[in-house]
Amino acid sequence: MSISTHAASVEIFDHMLGALVKCIAKAKAHCEAKKIEPDALTSARLYPDMFPFWRQVCLASDFAKGPVARLAGVDVPAWEDKERTFDELTQRLEKTREFIKGVAKEKFADAAARDVTVKIGGQDMTMSGEVYLLRMATPNFYFHMTTAYDILRHAGVELGKRDFLGRT
Amino acid sequence: MSISTHAASVEIFDHMLGALVKCIAKAKAHCEAKKIEPDALTSARLYPDMFPFWRQVCLASDFAKGPVARLAGVDVPAWEDKERTFDELTQRLEKTREFIKGVAKEKFADAAARDVTVKIGGQDMTMSGEVYLLRMATPNFYFHMTTAYDILRHAGVELGKRDFLGRT
Repeated sequence: MSISTHAASVEIFDHMLGALVKCIAKAKAHCEAKKIEPDALTSARLYPDMFPFWRQVCLASDFAKGPVARLAGVDVPAWEDKERTFDELTQRLEKTREFIKGVAKEKFADAAARDVTVKIGGQDMTMSGEVYLLRMATPNFYFHMTTAYDILRHAGVELGKRDFLGRT
Repeated sequence: MSISTHAASVEIFDHMLGALVKCIAKAKAHCEAKKIEPDALTSARLYPDMFPFWRQVCLASDFAKGPVARLAGVDVPAWEDKERTFDELTQRLEKTREFIKGVAKEKFADAAARDVTVKIGGQDMTMSGEVYLLRMATPNFYFHMTTAYDILRHAGVELGKRDFLGRT
C-alpha cells in the first residue's frame, strides 16, 4: 500500500492552513493585548530581502491551491495577493481551504502519474505528479508555512510547535 | 497510482538533507570571509526560547532517521546530539543520509499501512504509517529544515530558496 495523493495534498494542506489560521488569531490577540500595531507583525521579515509575513501567508496559500489544482487537472485559480491584515489573511486561508476541499477526490486517482508542467526560472518543466508534489509543492508549502510561523515567533508571539502542527 | 512511501520518505529526506549540507558549507564560507566566529551562527536562535541552529539541524536529522526506521520496521538508531560545529553537523547529516539510504527499499512495501507507535506528550499513540509520515514526520522534518535555513538567513548568510530546495 502506498500513500494517497489526496491525503498528501488536500488533506494535509487543509490541516496545516487551519493551524496557520489559529496562529494568526493568536498573533492578532497578542497585538491587542500588548498594544502593538498589527502592521508591525504582518509586515515583519526575518531579513530585508526576505518576504514579509503577509506574503509568506499568501505563498503558503499559493503552494496549496496551485498544486491541488494541477494534481487534479483543474484550472489554478488566479487570486491577486492583496491581503495585508490579519483578517484578510485569515479569509485568504479559508478561501484556499474551501477551494482545495471542493476539488472532487476522484480527480486524484491518477494524479501521481499525471504529467504536470510548471515554469521554473522562466522555463517549462514537466514532471510526474508524484515528483511535483514531493519535490516542489510540499517543500515550498512547508517553507512558507514555517517561515510565517518563525516570523511570528521572532516577533515575540507566544506560539509553540503544537500550534504549527495544528495539535491545539 | 498513488505515492511511493519510499520516495516520500527516504528519497525526499536524503535530497533535502543534501541541500542543508550545502547551506552549511555556505554558512561556513560566510564566516570565514567575514571573520565571524562560527559559533555565532551555530548557536544562533530566532527567539530565546527556540532551539539554536545546531539543534535544529540535529532535529531535522532525527525526523529523517526516526520516521524512516519506523516506516521500515527497523530499530531507530539512537545518536547522542553532540554535534555543535559546522563540520560536525555536516557529518551528522551525512551519517543520517547513509543510514536512511541503507534501509532496504522492499521494507517500505507495506509501510503506509503498518501501525506506528510514537510517544506524544508522554503518551503512546498508534497510527498508520501514512498518517505518521504525513501528519507528524513530514511537517516536523520541514519545520526544522526551514528554521535552520531561516536562522542562517536571519544571520545574513547569502542563501536563496534554490539552496533550500537543493536546486543548486
